[in-house]
Amino acid sequence: MELLFLGTSSGTPTKARNVSATAIKVPNAKSWCLVDCGEGTQHQVLRTNLSLNSLQAIFITHVHGDHSYGLPGLLASAAMAGRQDKLYLVGPPQIEALINAVCTLTDLYLPYELVFIDSARLNDCPPDLDLGVSAIKLSHRVPSHAFSFSYQAHERKLDIDKLKRAGIRPGPHWGELQKGRNVELDGKLLIADDYLLPAPQARKIIICGDNDTPDLLSDEVKNANVVVHEATYTYDIAQKVGSGPMHSSAKIVAEFAGEHQVDNLVLTHFSARYQNDGSKSPSIFDIEQEARKYYSGNLVLAQDFDGYRLDKNGVLTKL
Amino acid sequence: MELLFLGTSSGTPTKARNVSATAIKVPNAKSWCLVDCGEGTQHQVLRTNLSLNSLQAIFITHVHGDHSYGLPGLLASAAMAGRQDKLYLVGPPQIEALINAVCTLTDLYLPYELVFIDSARLNDCPPDLDLGVSAIKLSHRVPSHAFSFSYQAHERKLDIDKLKRAGIRPGPHWGELQKGRNVELDGKLLIADDYLLPAPQARKIIICGDNDTPDLLSDEVKNANVVVHEATYTYDIAQKVGSGPMHSSAKIVAEFAGEHQVDNLVLTHFSARYQNDGSKSPSIFDIEQEARKYYSGNLVLAQDFDGYRLDKNGVLTKL
Repeated sequence: MELLFLGTSSGTPTKARNVSATAIKVPNAKSWCLVDCGEGTQHQVLRTNLSLNSLQAIFITHVHGDHSYGLPGLLASAAMAGRQDKLYLVGPPQIEALINAVCTLTDLYLPYELVFIDSARLNDCPPDLDLGVSAIKLSHRVPSHAFSFSYQAHERKLDIDKLKRAGIRPGPHWGELQKGRNVELDGKLLIADDYLLPAPQARKIIICGDNDTPDLLSDEVKNANVVVHEATYTYDIAQKVGSGPMHSSAKIVAEFAGEHQVDNLVLTHFSARYQNDGSKSPSIFDIEQEARKYYSGNLVLAQDFDGYRLDKNGVLTKL
Repeated sequence: MELLFLGTSSGTPTKARNVSATAIKVPNAKSWCLVDCGEGTQHQVLRTNLSLNSLQAIFITHVHGDHSYGLPGLLASAAMAGRQDKLYLVGPPQIEALINAVCTLTDLYLPYELVFIDSARLNDCPPDLDLGVSAIKLSHRVPSHAFSFSYQAHERKLDIDKLKRAGIRPGPHWGELQKGRNVELDGKLLIADDYLLPAPQARKIIICGDNDTPDLLSDEVKNANVVVHEATYTYDIAQKVGSGPMHSSAKIVAEFAGEHQVDNLVLTHFSARYQNDGSKSPSIFDIEQEARKYYSGNLVLAQDFDGYRLDKNGVLTKL
């Protein structure tokens, strides 16, 4: 699976970071899914290889504007780009009401079908996508969810050693076997399943909405390769701000990821007060330093337009 | 008066142009007004010296998304920036309904007063601003208005020649007279009004919403210094597109401006198909060439972040 961060700022955009949006897709596929759609997400998409025509589904973690105000413009631009395929829109029911209000009040007509799915019901009626997806309830000022994406690569590799041991020489029949088709060779039936290695384990990436209680993910992170979680503040600033905003600090997320042996932790959704330039204070570097104190796995601090690939061995690398 | 173009694309943003937004202000004043607020306008403002705290009023010409979808995010960011002063929002009544829906559905609380004024009633109850403003009805698929901004500089200049002829030597009393205060000098009362030149004529800039009938501005352009009008297409493409979208071509706007001897014509709101790069076709250069055929006054093709100043003599210059 591949991740592309389209917005990594919390609340308001900065010159270096837009508000929340993350693309997730299968490598080499054109189709993709979007998690959150802050204002200006369509502008960010313009600067990537992603096409609004290939967007399969949008997932909105919660109703706050920095996660949703880019929806009307993105849906309108998809219409103007000639999109006709149906588009799934998963989120709180208020998102459906918002889009309906926008269509009515601003004379917006969408020439494609928009299929709304309430996040709270996603696990009962998942959309038909390239990726499996389920929702996890989080804790925030408004109902908020994480979305867990899984990908089971179906293609299996040939067991070359076994083929050689059986004296089956290379040829077009190898390709047939790899595709799972049984082959008759020299009067003998070769059963594809006998010469294929087991399918690789499904990969799993969890992309979280705003959340002040990482422990809510305890069960779900057990078999996840990557967790993308907000770290709006460092611990000291979180203490000053108080519990009102119901966000996480780098410390509590890193502690959680460390305790649960998360392999890859991606932090995002940084308060606009954190400068990208480490020479100014406070900076993203402070968030990174704090997280490293409590977490020794593969730590990533998301930046706009950074892409990552999760390979079949569960290794996350920057593209 | 000063103009700063924040978005000059029609329908969808391009890499070079954002959707509609124009700032207008008195030179050297911090306060400013915004006409239209397409998605990403707050991102554009971040790249200027304008502050959301000094914004006096937002005028929305019509409900279409490329003129209004930046409103929720801009209002929310002004709230997060600590704005407390009331803000005027002038536009069609659907804009008030939209903002109310957004506040309710996305848990948005604005800690400042938002004073809605229906564009159709603006001329009866204008807001209290640095600039005078009135609305002009246009013709588009939905109700659309132009906003006419006027500025009457109150400071008058001293009539130096007359002062010299009267033998009144320079001194602090000159400053008092210039401020309009009568002065007693050597036992003689000098009446300020006798030694001041007439106030300069009011300046006027008309910023139009989408409109397929420039003639609707015939009366209003008589004493306007600058007209900012959409030129979504060149004439040939407008013919191909047909009359459905109800936009203007460069030709019909330029013809109108020529016939009515408009001193300064600013074209904007170009279809995203027109490339900024003149080596690709169609380009903004095609729009410019077409307009020059029919209009010999001062022609400007607006670009994002270009600023212009209208001086007291009615001359418009690029900043």
